[in-house]
Parts: sequence; C-alpha cells; structure tokens
Amino acid sequence: MSADLLSHIRIVLSHTSHPGNIGAAARAMKTMGIVSLHLVNPKKFPDAEAEAMASGASDVLQKARVCASLAEALQGTVYALAVSARRRGLAYASVEARSAAQALVSAAQGGEVAIVFGTEMSGLSNEEILQCRAMAHIPADPDYSSLNLAAAVQVMAYEARVAALGAQLLPPAESEPARHEDVENFYLHLEQSLCASGFLDPANPRRLIPRLRRLFGRARLEQEEVNILRGILNSFRK
Amino acid sequence: MSADLLSHIRIVLSHTSHPGNIGAAARAMKTMGIVSLHLVNPKKFPDAEAEAMASGASDVLQKARVCASLAEALQGTVYALAVSARRRGLAYASVEARSAAQALVSAAQGGEVAIVFGTEMSGLSNEEILQCRAMAHIPADPDYSSLNLAAAVQVMAYEARVAALGAQLLPPAESEPARHEDVENFYLHLEQSLCASGFLDPANPRRLIPRLRRLFGRARLEQEEVNILRGILNSFRK
Repeated sequence: MSADLLSHIRIVLSHTSHPGNIGAAARAMKTMGIVSLHLVNPKKFPDAEAEAMASGASDVLQKARVCASLAEALQGTVYALAVSARRRGLAYASVEARSAAQALVSAAQGGEVAIVFGTEMSGLSNEEILQCRAMAHIPADPDYSSLNLAAAVQVMAYEARVAALGAQLLPPAESEPARHEDVENFYLHLEQSLCASGFLDPANPRRLIPRLRRLFGRARLEQEEVNILRGILNSFRK
Repeated sequence: MSADLLSHIRIVLSHTSHPGNIGAAARAMKTMGIVSLHLVNPKKFPDAEAEAMASGASDVLQKARVCASLAEALQGTVYALAVSARRRGLAYASVEARSAAQALVSAAQGGEVAIVFGTEMSGLSNEEILQCRAMAHIPADPDYSSLNLAAAVQVMAYEARVAALGAQLLPPAESEPARHEDVENFYLHLEQSLCASGFLDPANPRRLIPRLRRLFGRARLEQEEVNILRGILNSFRK
C-alpha cells in the first residue's frame, strides 16, 4: 500500500455556498496528502475568504477545477463515494466512513476515484447520490450530527489516508527493550533494597513483590530504564 | 457498545488564541457525542465569535470550564492524552490517533479521561506533555501537517467515538486507577528523594525526571501502587 494511491483521489464539493468552507476543505484535504479538488458550481470562487481559510493550501485552490455539473467532475473516475449525513430512503445502503474509505482506496488501485460532498445546508441531492457508486456516512451523534463541511472533508480524507498507508502503522520502537534476565536482576536488587530499607519484611512479605512486578511488567521496561532504576536503588543505599 | 464512555471524556484546549477555534472545536466534539470542554487560559472567552462558530453547540460553550492551569483541567482524570503534531526529542513515544483513542477509551472505563490540545501556533509545551500519560499524533502528510485546531479535535473525537461504539468492554479493572494529582505528587516525592539521595543533581538534571515520567506513564499506575511507591520512598529516607 502506498501514499501514491492518495494522488488518485479527488475531493468533489458540489454547490458549496461559503467560499471559506472551500478554503478550509482545501487545507483539510492537503493535510492528508490529497490535493485534487473539483468544485461543482460553487457560489463564489475564487474568493479572498477561500484563500484566507486555505492557509498553506492555496496551491490546492489554484489547481482546483470548476465544473458545470457533477457528471463533469466525475469524468474519468472509476469510483465515486457520496458522503451524506442523512439516511435516506434511497437505493444505496450507507456504509460507515471507515469501511467506505477502505473500499475507495481499494478502487483507487484501478484508477481515479472521488469523494463527493454536497452543500452546507442540504447535502447532496438524491440525483447526485445516484451518480456515485456508493454512499458513506460519518457515524456522528444522532442528536447532533451537523459536521461542518470542512470537518467532514477532514474525517473522510483522514480515513482515506489511513487506509492508503495501510493503517495501524506502529511507531518504530525508539529504544531497546530490556532483556528478561536484566529485569529479573532489577527485581532482585529492588527486593534487597526494600529489605534493607525496612519497607519489606522478609518474614511477612505480603504481596509486595508480585505487585511491583505487575507494575513494571505493564510498563515493558527498556534496557536503559533498568539501568536508571538500578542506579536509583544504589543511590538510596549509600 | 458504550456511548456512555464518551461522557467520561473531556476535551482540554490549552491557551487557545482564537475564540472562533474554540467554537468550532465545541461543534466538532459535540457531533461525536463529547460535551465536556475545559479551557486552560483561553485568550478570549466567552466571545461572540466562539458562539458563532459553535453553531448548534453553544451548550458546550456555556458549560465549558475555564481553568488557570493544565493541572487544574486534568484534576480528577485517570488518563490524559496529549495531541501533538510534531515529533519531539521527548521522552514519550507518540502513538497514532487510532490506537491512542482505543487506549483512551479503555482507560475511560476506570474514570474521567482527557484529550489535550495546545495552541494554534506552537501546540503543547514539553512541560504540558509531561503532565499527560501518553502522546498521540494524527498521521498527516509530513509536507503539510498543519491541521486546524478544530479539525484536529474533529479527528480525535471521531476516533474516540468509533472506539467507544466498538469497544469490547474489558472486565472491570481489578483496582482503581490513580488520579492525576496523586501521580503528580508521587513525581514530586520521587524528585525530592532523588535529590536527597544524590542521584539527581538539580543543577544538572539531564532528562532523568522526564524519563521516569515516561516509564510510570506507560504503566498507568493504580491508586494503591502510588501509595506503595510513596511508602517505598519514605522508607529510603529514614
């Protein structure tokens, strides 16, 4: 999987009312590595407020393509995903954002794909949705599901990016995990120190050492941390 | 599923410059069912622009709590996640948003938890990050990773919601997680003990305390463990 797939994704905004939202959407998509923007009949574009909200993403606005119809904006795509807040009595079953993004990215391996957003007030029309291959919704709180347009673009672009990168990338381990025997030696050292300090009574150990093993076991100590902890114990015995 | 867990999550915004961003963040979190907002020293609040951007989420603003410090905003929490765009030369390893949200929601089963965001320009300070138990980043394009504050809140709140709705509820924790303020007092106690023992030279602390915070942060201390550790420190000072 690769970020190359992101270059196959275009964001389509249909009949957007506020140019500030176009700018904020441009910024949102660019943070996720998606830079192709198609605008279907925007109310005002280009516009100073779009520029202002785009922050460092004005290149996305400059390259944005203004189209007269959704059909034009989808030309050349092999897959289009309609994003809609509302469940409708429509042919399509709406899929949640995450699996919708996975399907989209998978389709992007075969060509250009689109994520399509409607107007701020009423979303996509049924006619527009029917031009898309699938329909997605962001699982918002049913009592207040009104995501701002750019916020919805942010979430969908984020999901597309995570799907494209192959998701669940774990951070590379920054440091060497402690070896078993060194951890055991630390426990021994700790136990001796606690006996010496009087905190642990060998005649009545209760469950102190098991508890401390559990604590440090959860932490999954690194080698250097074991060294630090043993240095600390030595400092206390001086 | 447990949307209840969402009621254990608070969003903390530290030193936010633009009230419009506070309003947009309130809207973003509310769409995901998270309604507890804590503001640490906001530049301007309350403010008409915050109201305007909150759209239908002005109840979140009205109930928002303004705090004088991050410590105050984190009081009573058992887990805090610092969201930071930049990788830093810091003790903590940064985890991607998705797994960070899963850990957060899992911790929320034991009490109140927080997701913490810094200023628009410079994010969280290292000192603020060290007060949190873990650090997360949204996997943005390295060439343009500048998410708007409310957009970052939207993504993290979305991930928290998805995690909460899909949460495989863990068996109830065997024991009570430590409260933020008690963990902080333990760190203070530890630092004093290490100065007294000579292991820590206040004139040349190197990175010892941040390292130890990282270790114990990973372990997610329980209340009783904090008591044991403080008992141990006392025993060494006798």
